[in-house]
Amino acid sequence: MKRISLLGSTGSIGTQTLDVISRYPEQFQVEALAAGQNGDLLVEQANRFRPKLVSVSSKELADAVAPRLPAGTAVVYGEQGLIEAAAHNDADIVVTAIVGSQGLKPTLAAIEAGKQIGLANKETLVSGGHLVSAAAKRRSVQILPVDSEHSAIFQCLNGESVKSVRKIVLTASGGSFRDRTREQLANVTVQEALAHPNWSMGAKITIDSATMVNKGLEVIEAHWLFGLAYDQIEVLIHPESIIHSFVEYEDRSIIAQMGLPDMRVPIQYALTYPDRYVSPVQSLDLTELGKLHFRTMNFDRFPCLRMAFECGKTGGTMTTVFNAANEVAVARFLAGEITFLGIEEVIESVIGRHQPVRLPALEEIDEADSWARLAAGEIRV
Amino acid sequence: MKRISLLGSTGSIGTQTLDVISRYPEQFQVEALAAGQNGDLLVEQANRFRPKLVSVSSKELADAVAPRLPAGTAVVYGEQGLIEAAAHNDADIVVTAIVGSQGLKPTLAAIEAGKQIGLANKETLVSGGHLVSAAAKRRSVQILPVDSEHSAIFQCLNGESVKSVRKIVLTASGGSFRDRTREQLANVTVQEALAHPNWSMGAKITIDSATMVNKGLEVIEAHWLFGLAYDQIEVLIHPESIIHSFVEYEDRSIIAQMGLPDMRVPIQYALTYPDRYVSPVQSLDLTELGKLHFRTMNFDRFPCLRMAFECGKTGGTMTTVFNAANEVAVARFLAGEITFLGIEEVIESVIGRHQPVRLPALEEIDEADSWARLAAGEIRV
Repeated sequence: MKRISLLGSTGSIGTQTLDVISRYPEQFQVEALAAGQNGDLLVEQANRFRPKLVSVSSKELADAVAPRLPAGTAVVYGEQGLIEAAAHNDADIVVTAIVGSQGLKPTLAAIEAGKQIGLANKETLVSGGHLVSAAAKRRSVQILPVDSEHSAIFQCLNGESVKSVRKIVLTASGGSFRDRTREQLANVTVQEALAHPNWSMGAKITIDSATMVNKGLEVIEAHWLFGLAYDQIEVLIHPESIIHSFVEYEDRSIIAQMGLPDMRVPIQYALTYPDRYVSPVQSLDLTELGKLHFRTMNFDRFPCLRMAFECGKTGGTMTTVFNAANEVAVARFLAGEITFLGIEEVIESVIGRHQPVRLPALEEIDEADSWARLAAGEIRV
Repeated sequence: MKRISLLGSTGSIGTQTLDVISRYPEQFQVEALAAGQNGDLLVEQANRFRPKLVSVSSKELADAVAPRLPAGTAVVYGEQGLIEAAAHNDADIVVTAIVGSQGLKPTLAAIEAGKQIGLANKETLVSGGHLVSAAAKRRSVQILPVDSEHSAIFQCLNGESVKSVRKIVLTASGGSFRDRTREQLANVTVQEALAHPNWSMGAKITIDSATMVNKGLEVIEAHWLFGLAYDQIEVLIHPESIIHSFVEYEDRSIIAQMGLPDMRVPIQYALTYPDRYVSPVQSLDLTELGKLHFRTMNFDRFPCLRMAFECGKTGGTMTTVFNAANEVAVARFLAGEITFLGIEEVIESVIGRHQPVRLPALEEIDEADSWARLAAGEIRV
């Protein structure tokens, strides 16, 4: 019996995580659930999975949901509530499926409390990679990636030595606009940007997929997760998203992980690792597809990916700034304030003005994050 | 320092094995070399790698090569010589790269002597799978596959439990005639059959690749190597031979092994396992290829594969008979005695007349083998 705390239970990864958990009631028990604004869904989840604790974003929401929770479920709120849901309970593993930079502190708290991490919040490593890696090493905590690409790499490294890795290749579907030229991107709408060809995901990550910021964050995350240099990490366009990523070893043997695009596979693997359980996902039939396609990544077409590599190599607070500037830029795009190409202009302008701090402490990360958000909100593009 | 005995040193796999060995003189030492008829090449190899022992097919050849061998290299011959080269020396690992059913006895002798096996002779498991598996288990000897498909599966199983395997899929290029209909196969020449699109291999295996007998033997071999039921083994046509084979686990996650087709990768992996060394092989660039293709295997188009599955399921001496009938049929085709489609007719006729013996001893395998060869030689097609 594995006890699970799920941060971000009402989002896309959160609900799919509960779907996985619900299929193995003998193996999994929900210890805590944390949500943001969606009190109704959280109440429904709490009544179904009977956690000891739920956490919401504010005191108002906590007061509103409290009377609708089952007996035995306490409610907490805010940043402190999130940390409580992450660290101060009997969970064995904490799945961090909250979006954005708010994932860092609860993840660090969970690691300090000795809990395994099912990492779905990529900003955690993007902002605090050096802190998280050091803490995980010190507390002998395993970080199990939930993201499909990192889960793929993690699976391809099973039984192998990272020292034998020549490079890893993250595949990218190319996002909603993969078949458009840069010229054609000038006037795309929010609606068009939200139509991802392969994966069903939240709005933020769908836009990040179209700008390739998502892949850039994954590159930085992979650097920390697997301890690889940036020149050992490549990105390849693979429109079908069937090969989720692969590892090339020194002997030029490549181990790849494949399957139909369904997040429940990497989610379940993080929960059952090192075992594998039967999943409800359909089996991949390669003959039905007939073909798999591959294209070179074009850094001129996707400048955000080039910037991500550059920020990663610079290190320190630069990756926090890259991420924070992007969060604000995406919000501004979704609000109709800036164009799609404005997103990359905002990021470029903000990172161009940042003086990075090396090996930043949590406060310095927070400071860089706030500065970048402010800067990104003010830039006219 | 790993000491290696190489059976079949002058063949395609043998020479490539020596190529691999020559690149790591600090890691590998050749203990014994066994060849068949090619005395000149064996002498050259012996003078380069200085083994303590060489073995050839006959006393005449042994007498002929003896004066040309370096000091310190003894020469033996015949079946007994082969067994001596396999078992009675200081080798840590024996690479069995000889072609045909003569591989079984020396392999069993090497296992009894506690040596690891780099298995490139598939007939060993096809004929004596039950004996080899039992002996390897009893002597705690690891069978390391050298064949590209089995090496792929072996690599995909690294760090995983065979119990979690849902199925394995062996890929097949489709061979020299993959784009021809059955009707177009009626009058193909030996020359055409020997032109394999992807792999540079010996004549026998190139024909076996065109008839799909090779894949059939691989299916039977995989059954024994990985302890899987026949309905857990599938075959898929993949013309580019880039994905060498893959494993689907219970959770529908697929782990695949890929690379440019070059036998030196699986050969080297068997020699360095569980480590990986830098190899001279080119890195795979999927964007250069652009596409990978997959087609359903058609058992009517390739009846030899259907027969291989049937013989495998029947078990006992039936797989020995399948293999022996094929060896004779291919020899008859190469000699211009029968047509290409005559190969499958010979096999079908011989297996149709065989009364299999269950769990045969070595003598019963020999008997079935001899009977099948005789029968296959006499059939008029």
